[in-house]
Amino acid sequence: MSSILELTKFITREFNGSLNSFPLPKQPEYLYGPIKYALKGKGKRFRPILVHLSGRKFKVDPDEIMKVSLAVELLHSFTLIHDDIMDFDETRRNMPTVHKQFDISAAILAGDGIFTISQLILNGIENKPAQFLLLYNQAVLNICEGQALDKDFEGKEDISLENYISMVEKKTGALLAACCCLPAVLAGTSQDNINILQNIGKDLGVAFQIQDDLFEIFGEENIMGKSLGSDILSKKNTAIAIESRKSFRSEWDVIVEGFDGKNLAKLRNFLIEYKIKKKVEDIAENHFSSAYKSLIKIGFDQHSELYQFIKIIQERHS
Amino acid sequence: MSSILELTKFITREFNGSLNSFPLPKQPEYLYGPIKYALKGKGKRFRPILVHLSGRKFKVDPDEIMKVSLAVELLHSFTLIHDDIMDFDETRRNMPTVHKQFDISAAILAGDGIFTISQLILNGIENKPAQFLLLYNQAVLNICEGQALDKDFEGKEDISLENYISMVEKKTGALLAACCCLPAVLAGTSQDNINILQNIGKDLGVAFQIQDDLFEIFGEENIMGKSLGSDILSKKNTAIAIESRKSFRSEWDVIVEGFDGKNLAKLRNFLIEYKIKKKVEDIAENHFSSAYKSLIKIGFDQHSELYQFIKIIQERHS
Repeated sequence: MSSILELTKFITREFNGSLNSFPLPKQPEYLYGPIKYALKGKGKRFRPILVHLSGRKFKVDPDEIMKVSLAVELLHSFTLIHDDIMDFDETRRNMPTVHKQFDISAAILAGDGIFTISQLILNGIENKPAQFLLLYNQAVLNICEGQALDKDFEGKEDISLENYISMVEKKTGALLAACCCLPAVLAGTSQDNINILQNIGKDLGVAFQIQDDLFEIFGEENIMGKSLGSDILSKKNTAIAIESRKSFRSEWDVIVEGFDGKNLAKLRNFLIEYKIKKKVEDIAENHFSSAYKSLIKIGFDQHSELYQFIKIIQERHS
Repeated sequence: MSSILELTKFITREFNGSLNSFPLPKQPEYLYGPIKYALKGKGKRFRPILVHLSGRKFKVDPDEIMKVSLAVELLHSFTLIHDDIMDFDETRRNMPTVHKQFDISAAILAGDGIFTISQLILNGIENKPAQFLLLYNQAVLNICEGQALDKDFEGKEDISLENYISMVEKKTGALLAACCCLPAVLAGTSQDNINILQNIGKDLGVAFQIQDDLFEIFGEENIMGKSLGSDILSKKNTAIAIESRKSFRSEWDVIVEGFDGKNLAKLRNFLIEYKIKKKVEDIAENHFSSAYKSLIKIGFDQHSELYQFIKIIQERHS
């Protein structure tokens, strides 16, 4: 495991170097100021790492891998900026969100600009199959659909676990799927393999999102870089809320009504005692297992870098 | 002139048919409801017409011309939706703007979705030169920069006519430039011709925007589909405001301070009497002349469809 950790550190360093030296104009400040601010936040770089590990396996040219990884991280940043406006989030990665630091207009425009730059980076890759950009933009449209479903689910009480999973497959899974399969498309891999890589990304998306939903309650505030329990306050339909409501409706209503954003202990005890935490963790585990099976099917054995990296994600604590 | 009017009517009808039958999913309603609402508004279709007339001259496949024209109109729609949020505009084409009809979140997402669909349409054009999408997305980034400059100029008193023109070349001109040259790029035209077509678009953008600024004061409310004089109320740095302030500072301040959004006559009289209207009209005329000269240079003589269509734009009254 130590060598995969070394490798991901190396990739992260190289990626951050490329991102930091990415040429952005100074003017107009109204556009590039907020863009630079948004890109300053250090994410975990899961998505670029996925791109690099997939690209290494498929022997894609390293410069092209770097371009794809920059594009997906910029795409991710664009969706975060716009989602934070839509979700009224004020903090991200211990920093004020773009619309809090500047204003909503500047944040909308910064998102639009970053998204456009991601397109320009991919447009600059030579000799790519026609499918490549179609797949990228189809992923973006899926992300928009996922965000729309998430907004649509807000405050509704009849959302099933299946509804939630289809939403997350789009909102979170579509981009991870793109990370896994874009390098494979560049390498001219078979359509069967591309489809399997898409499914791996979707599985990862669901597992990853459920982990995030759990951290949002069981994590540590300073590590998470934001206040905890906000999903409960905003009555988000997470897997946790859906499963709690399904099995223990009246108890859950009491917990939610009594939650003031601070008394996390009561909420946590309920989820542990009533085995909701365990149940939801199992859903994530099942999706990880499904991803591993798919990986094996296309020749990424358990010693492969991508397999080992997903193990690291599976065992993360924040 | 009657044949060019017939032709533009024909193109508009064909274009509207393609746009209306463009396949959009029903679900999620939160995304596609606002998108469909935004696309219902009947614009003048100047941009699609430019694409078709350029494409006809360069003998581009009609299906491909239609795709490019759909993409640029969707791109235009995306920028209007986001600009309307940023500029707090409540009415467009006699209908509530998307964020007024729905809300800001839905409007942000609708814009993102429409922009992504425009990319997908262009991604689906086969055998296009590598330059094609780079040029498209570079135009989008220029539009973002233009909007940023426009926002940045708000309330500032030291904006020169040159500043204004550079802003408009990006905000309005970049898309018109793309309309003129994207079909030429598909046809494999020389880089020199492409550069000239870009300049034609920029000239048109400036002339067109100045016309709009004038209509915003001298037009008819029901034809414009919005309330007049809002640029004055929001202290926008239009060519009219810049030229008035430059030459008749104290008189202009009195007019602006006394303007309540309704007493247009006083404002109009001032602009006519102090010859600001004439001066600004001349700037627009000079840009039209420059566009005609460029057209002649690349073989669009005064009988060509594109030349004649620009004559129609020049003589428009709304």
